[in-house]
Amino acid sequence: MKTRERILAASLMLFNEDGEAHVSTNHIADELNISPGNLYYHFRNKEDITLEIFAGFRQRMEALLDAPANRGIMDLEDVWLFLHLVYETIWEYRFLYHNLVDLTRRNRTIRRRFHRLIRKKEQAGKDLCHSLIAAGVMQASDEEVEAVATSMALVATYWLSFATVRADEQGEVELAPAVYQTLSLMAPYLREPERGYLGRLAEAYR
Amino acid sequence: MKTRERILAASLMLFNEDGEAHVSTNHIADELNISPGNLYYHFRNKEDITLEIFAGFRQRMEALLDAPANRGIMDLEDVWLFLHLVYETIWEYRFLYHNLVDLTRRNRTIRRRFHRLIRKKEQAGKDLCHSLIAAGVMQASDEEVEAVATSMALVATYWLSFATVRADEQGEVELAPAVYQTLSLMAPYLREPERGYLGRLAEAYR
Repeated sequence: MKTRERILAASLMLFNEDGEAHVSTNHIADELNISPGNLYYHFRNKEDITLEIFAGFRQRMEALLDAPANRGIMDLEDVWLFLHLVYETIWEYRFLYHNLVDLTRRNRTIRRRFHRLIRKKEQAGKDLCHSLIAAGVMQASDEEVEAVATSMALVATYWLSFATVRADEQGEVELAPAVYQTLSLMAPYLREPERGYLGRLAEAYR
Repeated sequence: MKTRERILAASLMLFNEDGEAHVSTNHIADELNISPGNLYYHFRNKEDITLEIFAGFRQRMEALLDAPANRGIMDLEDVWLFLHLVYETIWEYRFLYHNLVDLTRRNRTIRRRFHRLIRKKEQAGKDLCHSLIAAGVMQASDEEVEAVATSMALVATYWLSFATVRADEQGEVELAPAVYQTLSLMAPYLREPERGYLGRLAEAYR
């Protein structure tokens, strides 16, 4: 890896472990055993690093969120896979989510872009419901789809933080219960066979 | 107000506005036009202030969360009022919620107590559903109640943060949409007349 990429990877790791606000460029240089001067050759300051990491996150998340509209999710296994990928990406960049209000308050660029990302999440939730309705798997009014999509966006945004605070010990958070919880929001609007599928997931992952 | 109480009130205001991590005891003394020495006469350090504010919050929230088990919530208007009081309390102490992972990581006492508070929120969600089931207003299996109660606890924990990030402009967040969104999680399990009531709320508050 080139130095620039090593800086980004080490920063992401430290941000996730300690929170972005508590990591300085000196910490990052220390972690990589390079001089602060070498770090400043690649990035002007920590905000530059945060913005570049955020740009990478955003690109991946936006590509993911386009999936429900483009490929037409047809059944619950597609939804399961889609949500799993969303949660994997959030987990990889969890520092962004852990202190979202603080981060978006301090950085206007991230604030504007996160705002759009949350709208896109809600839209992806609606697209997903409409795909399942078109496939005959789900039955819900527009109002119900709206409420479910908003709840899905909120749960997807905060589940990993919630699970972190709720856990007795800090450590890796499992993704399958996150996926199950998100799916459970759609459960009452699903056909009987799909509800059965969810019931089996509940036994496995709750 | 006595100086001690004025310090707590000013701290709460500054924490809510700027985030607890970004407020120092000097800021607080400045805001009150008192000397840092006067502040230190009442509190050893900022952590002491944070813990005392948290204790006040916790007392109020725990008393609130006991309501569904003790008084037996009977209809949706009771639920509406109960949730409104929960959101009012969270809004008043929103700094705790805005950067929850950071705060609970830095402070073990808050971490342990918040952990219990979230469990209590989930229990209150379950008590609430069981009250409505007993009153014949709601119909759901234990598994469904479990999923709904967890989602209610998550939405109640994070709605105000979510609404803050989702809004175009920073400012006061409205509580009625938060209540509506939380109620919508129970909607599919309600009797027809109660669903109608929710539908009218949706028109008013969405």
